Amino acid sequence: MNARNQAAVPENLTRELAALIVGSRFDALPAKVVHEGKRALLNIVGCALGGCRHPAFEIALGALGPYAGQPLAQVLGRPERFDPLFAALLNGISSHVHDYDDTTPDNYIHNSSPVASALFAYASCHPVSGADLLHAFIVGFEVSSLIGTATYPAHYAAGWHSTGSIGVFGAAAAIGLLRGLSAGQMTHALGLAATQSSGLREMFGSMAKSFHPGRAAQGGYTAALLAERGFTAGTHGLEGPRGFAPVTCASFDLAKVTDAFGKTFELLRNTYKPFPCGIVTHPTIDACIQLQREHALSAEQIVAVRLTVAPLVKDLCNKQHIDTGLEGKFSIYHGAAIGLARGRAGLAEFTDETVRDPALVRLRNLTEALGDARISEDAVDVEVRLADGRVLHTLLEQSLGNLARPMSDAQLEAKLYGQTEVLTQDAARRVVELCWSVERLDDARTLIDAAVPPH
Amino acid sequence: MNARNQAAVPENLTRELAALIVGSRFDALPAKVVHEGKRALLNIVGCALGGCRHPAFEIALGALGPYAGQPLAQVLGRPERFDPLFAALLNGISSHVHDYDDTTPDNYIHNSSPVASALFAYASCHPVSGADLLHAFIVGFEVSSLIGTATYPAHYAAGWHSTGSIGVFGAAAAIGLLRGLSAGQMTHALGLAATQSSGLREMFGSMAKSFHPGRAAQGGYTAALLAERGFTAGTHGLEGPRGFAPVTCASFDLAKVTDAFGKTFELLRNTYKPFPCGIVTHPTIDACIQLQREHALSAEQIVAVRLTVAPLVKDLCNKQHIDTGLEGKFSIYHGAAIGLARGRAGLAEFTDETVRDPALVRLRNLTEALGDARISEDAVDVEVRLADGRVLHTLLEQSLGNLARPMSDAQLEAKLYGQTEVLTQDAARRVVELCWSVERLDDARTLIDAAVPPH
Repeated sequence: MNARNQAAVPENLTRELAALIVGSRFDALPAKVVHEGKRALLNIVGCALGGCRHPAFEIALGALGPYAGQPLAQVLGRPERFDPLFAALLNGISSHVHDYDDTTPDNYIHNSSPVASALFAYASCHPVSGADLLHAFIVGFEVSSLIGTATYPAHYAAGWHSTGSIGVFGAAAAIGLLRGLSAGQMTHALGLAATQSSGLREMFGSMAKSFHPGRAAQGGYTAALLAERGFTAGTHGLEGPRGFAPVTCASFDLAKVTDAFGKTFELLRNTYKPFPCGIVTHPTIDACIQLQREHALSAEQIVAVRLTVAPLVKDLCNKQHIDTGLEGKFSIYHGAAIGLARGRAGLAEFTDETVRDPALVRLRNLTEALGDARISEDAVDVEVRLADGRVLHTLLEQSLGNLARPMSDAQLEAKLYGQTEVLTQDAARRVVELCWSVERLDDARTLIDAAVPPH
Repeated sequence: MNARNQAAVPENLTRELAALIVGSRFDALPAKVVHEGKRALLNIVGCALGGCRHPAFEIALGALGPYAGQPLAQVLGRPERFDPLFAALLNGISSHVHDYDDTTPDNYIHNSSPVASALFAYASCHPVSGADLLHAFIVGFEVSSLIGTATYPAHYAAGWHSTGSIGVFGAAAAIGLLRGLSAGQMTHALGLAATQSSGLREMFGSMAKSFHPGRAAQGGYTAALLAERGFTAGTHGLEGPRGFAPVTCASFDLAKVTDAFGKTFELLRNTYKPFPCGIVTHPTIDACIQLQREHALSAEQIVAVRLTVAPLVKDLCNKQHIDTGLEGKFSIYHGAAIGLARGRAGLAEFTDETVRDPALVRLRNLTEALGDARISEDAVDVEVRLADGRVLHTLLEQSLGNLARPMSDAQLEAKLYGQTEVLTQDAARRVVELCWSVERLDDARTLIDAAVPPH
């Protein structure tokens, strides 16, 4: 709907952004941005490998595979080949389906999934140097995250799942850059991205959530291909009175996008989830893992647990009696139980089977959770009472993965290794090595090949 | 954004609509609805034939054709074969690209394009009886038009091109019905349609406008295929707090959809454009054609023309000095000139060449247009001064094609014949015959085959 509260809208914002995108140079990127780009790539490769056998992926493949084109492209973690537009969709599903990918907390977008999903599909069947791949990834990430920040919170608050509805811009920019679009063509590509923008938060909790970054990857890729051939769009796709921002946001400040592009970097405010579950459960899990490790706890020692959490956390994740892995992802009781009993929280801790483990059911039942406005959403207070009478206590102020306490490179590697069941250990190690050295690869296919099991 | 002014939202609207769709029976449709369905089909087949060699079509084919799947499906008017999802996209572009398709004036949606585009693609490579095709078409038309009416004017006013953003529901319903989805599956198909809803009015005047019904056809078809296999969506895709209506409309009344489905029929309020140009130029064209025919006028006789039109018409279509066919579609001066000089206004009257015809340039230059609030948007007052001193005058109160003055079956046939350059005259006549008898065809492919030229 037409916006009322937005800042002055730059008249040719879409054209200006297009010119900035096509004028971007890898050599001009600060070293720390390049390194963060590699961290984001490594993280999303791991997520795609972890999700590439998920039922949502298999169903989409079964339903749409019969309509796919020439099998030229590869999908991370899968031996089959697909047409690249379909491969982009599938990479998007796999890399987001476990809710384990990255987040820019300034706009709650998971930028890497739509951008990298399109890029890996493209680079799997076109010659692209590692540096060009990394450059396009960083540019795509910046484009979607900047648009996200410029339209936050109104766009997200309206009900859009911005990972899809905004990710499509990043995918279009990234593929357009690799295709060598002119600024004029890129303007149309951004318009064609705008007019495919979609994805509703109403889908949260269903498979359609992971379809969003997939469709964004496929739609952005499609936009670039069409624009390259001269298919025209409106040239004010972002800022025009019936363009993306006025139609989807009650307020926005698009000047932020062109002001910041290439100067400050969204990537430097990217965060990575240490656990594949609702982010507000992370402090609880983190604190409980620390207690388990420090005291070598086992489930049967524990007689009572008291969690004091931010009121919002209790509102969102208060389900104590649960039966499925998906429910477990949004239960602080389950988060505490796996932390205290197992000392870890990887994909294996969120299966239906694990959720039904009697030891964990017992722990959930003896846990109480209190909401307390003095506790921030990054924090938790945990008290654990043991059978021998001891009372353990910890107050965690910043959860692992926050901007204030980022995951280390080694922790990101360990996270990837926790998701590489589809690869041999040697292949997984090679994927990690190639991610860290991607900008030196003559052909990015070397990385993609390492992340694909033999047929 | 979250709605404030809407009526009470039925709690399970999406589920209820899904149940109504799958419970629909062709035999229960009133005869006049069936006949209007055939009129709409005949009209959209003609539009698809007229647009299937448009540059927008050719560019989309060139850009995306290399990624298309198995060539099983046919596209109206084209000898090649494509995968059915791509064929749905292409039919959507061809059938809308001349802005010549139908309109339901209660919501300004061009419902037939997205629905029929998906259906013809599907039926070209699956056995579907003519009655089932017509039934699915009518149901899809009703679904999108009812959702359109329930969300009008807020959805359209917000900047959405509802032919795309709402057409996707009709396409999903139509394909889902042919696939035999259960009510549960249809609920998910509608959710998957909701979460693909897209298309911005900012694209008007560019090729992307015709991409909208194409993407809606392809997206709705995709939604049905995914839902059939068990890909899940949120089950409140339309009415949920972050579902389609609250996110895209400031106000809406979704109860209208389920209250009306199968009882009153949107199709009975469908209109067909007699001329392939902006609808507000139609009274002028219609009146000028009548004058030309009545007085056997030729361009050189005319020395002055005065048009008195509704103020809105003058606001929207006041371009006198134009150079392209596209501009001609939105110029009352050009509309008057072709009517008076040629006595017709088909596709040939809106080419760049025609717009540059010196006789028409002269006529446009000697025409003046006045806005007058006493003239309705359906009307025009035309005064033509001739070289021999005569002054001709007509006041037209209802333009051909309006609900008050619908095109006759014979006029719809003539409109189709004006767009069948890609077919032989015999084939075109056969297409018309088969449209009128579609419900008696054992296989709808008979109709599609007739509308496809030999390879």
